[in-house]
Amino acid sequence: MSQPLRLGIAGLGTVGVGVVRIIRKNAALLSARTGREITISAVSARSKSKDRGVPLTSYAWEDDPVALATRDDVDVFVELMGGSDGPAKAATEAALAAGKHVITANKAMLALHGQALAETAEAAGLSLRYEAAVAGGIPVVKALTEGLAANEITRVMGVMNGSCNYILTRMEDSGLNYQDIFAEADGLGYLEADPQLDVGGIDAAHKLAILSSIAFGTRVDFDGIELEGIERISIEDITAAADMGYKIKLLGVAQMTGRGLEQRMQPCLVPATSPLGQLQGGTNMVVLEGTSVEQVVLRGPGAGEGPTASAVMADVCDIARGFALPVFGQPANTLAEAKRATSQLPAPYYLRMGLVDKPGALAKIASVLGDAGVSIDRMRQYGHADTAAPVLIVTHKATRASIDTALEAMEGTGVLASRPVALRIEEL
Amino acid sequence: MSQPLRLGIAGLGTVGVGVVRIIRKNAALLSARTGREITISAVSARSKSKDRGVPLTSYAWEDDPVALATRDDVDVFVELMGGSDGPAKAATEAALAAGKHVITANKAMLALHGQALAETAEAAGLSLRYEAAVAGGIPVVKALTEGLAANEITRVMGVMNGSCNYILTRMEDSGLNYQDIFAEADGLGYLEADPQLDVGGIDAAHKLAILSSIAFGTRVDFDGIELEGIERISIEDITAAADMGYKIKLLGVAQMTGRGLEQRMQPCLVPATSPLGQLQGGTNMVVLEGTSVEQVVLRGPGAGEGPTASAVMADVCDIARGFALPVFGQPANTLAEAKRATSQLPAPYYLRMGLVDKPGALAKIASVLGDAGVSIDRMRQYGHADTAAPVLIVTHKATRASIDTALEAMEGTGVLASRPVALRIEEL
Repeated sequence: MSQPLRLGIAGLGTVGVGVVRIIRKNAALLSARTGREITISAVSARSKSKDRGVPLTSYAWEDDPVALATRDDVDVFVELMGGSDGPAKAATEAALAAGKHVITANKAMLALHGQALAETAEAAGLSLRYEAAVAGGIPVVKALTEGLAANEITRVMGVMNGSCNYILTRMEDSGLNYQDIFAEADGLGYLEADPQLDVGGIDAAHKLAILSSIAFGTRVDFDGIELEGIERISIEDITAAADMGYKIKLLGVAQMTGRGLEQRMQPCLVPATSPLGQLQGGTNMVVLEGTSVEQVVLRGPGAGEGPTASAVMADVCDIARGFALPVFGQPANTLAEAKRATSQLPAPYYLRMGLVDKPGALAKIASVLGDAGVSIDRMRQYGHADTAAPVLIVTHKATRASIDTALEAMEGTGVLASRPVALRIEEL
Repeated sequence: MSQPLRLGIAGLGTVGVGVVRIIRKNAALLSARTGREITISAVSARSKSKDRGVPLTSYAWEDDPVALATRDDVDVFVELMGGSDGPAKAATEAALAAGKHVITANKAMLALHGQALAETAEAAGLSLRYEAAVAGGIPVVKALTEGLAANEITRVMGVMNGSCNYILTRMEDSGLNYQDIFAEADGLGYLEADPQLDVGGIDAAHKLAILSSIAFGTRVDFDGIELEGIERISIEDITAAADMGYKIKLLGVAQMTGRGLEQRMQPCLVPATSPLGQLQGGTNMVVLEGTSVEQVVLRGPGAGEGPTASAVMADVCDIARGFALPVFGQPANTLAEAKRATSQLPAPYYLRMGLVDKPGALAKIASVLGDAGVSIDRMRQYGHADTAAPVLIVTHKATRASIDTALEAMEGTGVLASRPVALRIEEL
């Protein structure tokens, strides 16, 4: 048996504690499978005195994650603090400079600084691994970088933010509005410290940007994602979608086209009976499409102590086994600059708006849609007690550009009581 | 860039041709991702003259796969001939003896000789990889050996024979009986040369036996699988199941219990709206459950040129990248002998039988079930033109042992017109 692989763990929140638990409980299994003992040399977190439910006294304590990352008795620095910059980035850079492998669950850091960190790691012949950063317990980074390595990847899609999916499925189950369920999720600790990261779609977009880079051999381009959160989804949207046989999901899609790389993270309507439509609560799903493999779909828990720690530990096992590969699947200095493209593929759209209660209001909207080349498949106007008449429209297939043209023209009609919601309908 | 990785490919059927195609088409991608050129030195198949739709003249030809496997210019022997013994095994053994890594899609060989081959490979420090042997394009071997390596695996389940699933879904779609659709599938080339391998559940059981070994650290124990094929499933079963909201799937389940390892591959009823129930045609699905990750589900094409070649090439990429791990995830000489156990977990059962048209026949069956401790949830007797009355029974939860007791006692009642069909109902 080889030398033990010695970890230094920075961050003892849910995931950090989960990693400690697995190492203590599955020591025999881990060494049987990797041929090495996996040990923890030192840990670091904000509060030394907090009771975290696992014994930590046998590990050295460091207040400073940079000091932890550079200790002589640490082979692998495990970064579980989070935050795109600050201590996480400083300690990761220090670890790489000191010749340590790095494992991180930090999608924000990778989405914003992945290219530089990858170049640094690869120049030093070190691993920088991040299975836990994308889709929790689902081994999707491995599936994409290794399992489908012989494929030209054509499309990556997924529901990758469990908190948003929790909110959307809870709204439907309870019939309560967005604000109520948002407050509930926040109270249960399901949301990031800055909830906008979740409900604004930013966290999911970080993950999509990382998968895009691996899939298409392009530099991570978070800013190139067409991004829309779930804050404007109302219970009326969810009910109307359900009436038509759809569910609303925050769906990410990245695909390489002749015009460039399309990346979007937006709430969409998907058929209720489709695998994506059936996703409940915090479950994630990622769809990978390649020229040879056709389509592979992966489903599993997107967060939580056990699943996320399982993913961190998969990276630990790979390093223990001596596996080394470029951070994004091919050398970072060979990744191309992504050429951004917006989707031109027509799709049906769901539109919801409030119209002022005047004769001819609906006719004006219909006419504006017609002028933009958008034809109406179905339309409903609901009875209403207040002055705004709720109207739902499902269009025939239209490009996003023509929908945007129509939405803009609607603003000039003077009949809108509120800004319309426009959601793409994905027939998966 | 390192030296090229040179392959020798034995077997140029669908999968072999697919591998050649990927290597020719994706050469740049493969070397970008693995850091090495992937080349083919030599190929071997039964007929040299057959036109296979890919140019083969730049590769050396060997009539004898053993000669191919031991060539000096071959680093990796790719075995795509099939058959548990004969040339496939001889050439695999010859390759390992000559110091070559081996990649195979041969589940039969691994299920029957995996232990000995693994010991040989590991003693020589060679890789023996087989992603393509289980669930076609789905990277499930990688997910289990690597992605979930830190988990104690508790259960593995799956629909892993596309041909059986094709037959069952086509029966439902067409309303035709088993014999008709079997003939159709055979005519389309969807079945193995010995169709019993497919419809008898043997092929799927080979795959389950391999996954069990990885999951539970036990030696492959194909003979320990409770095995039942789909030959006795009639269109009446499919229709009756559909009426009750179920689909019939050939489902494999392996789980470690306090009593030992349970492995079964049997047709079951699963809820029609469940992910397993929704599987169409040749699509496979594998469910992996572990103590940390909870549940991960993988879905994708279970066969076909592109998907299977994708899986073979994933192994090629791993070897090119220098990844090495034990054949079944931990050293073969540390795998425990599986202690066999039969399932004692109660489940509802679906029973179908023909009863002779005599007064009291149904009462006798009901009484026999009661005596065995099996209580009836629902029962239907259909109108009938001939002498046997078709009866369907759905039981409350019962153990397989009590169902078997009841089935045996029914034989003695003299009221059975045909041997009953008993299918477990899995509430997934």
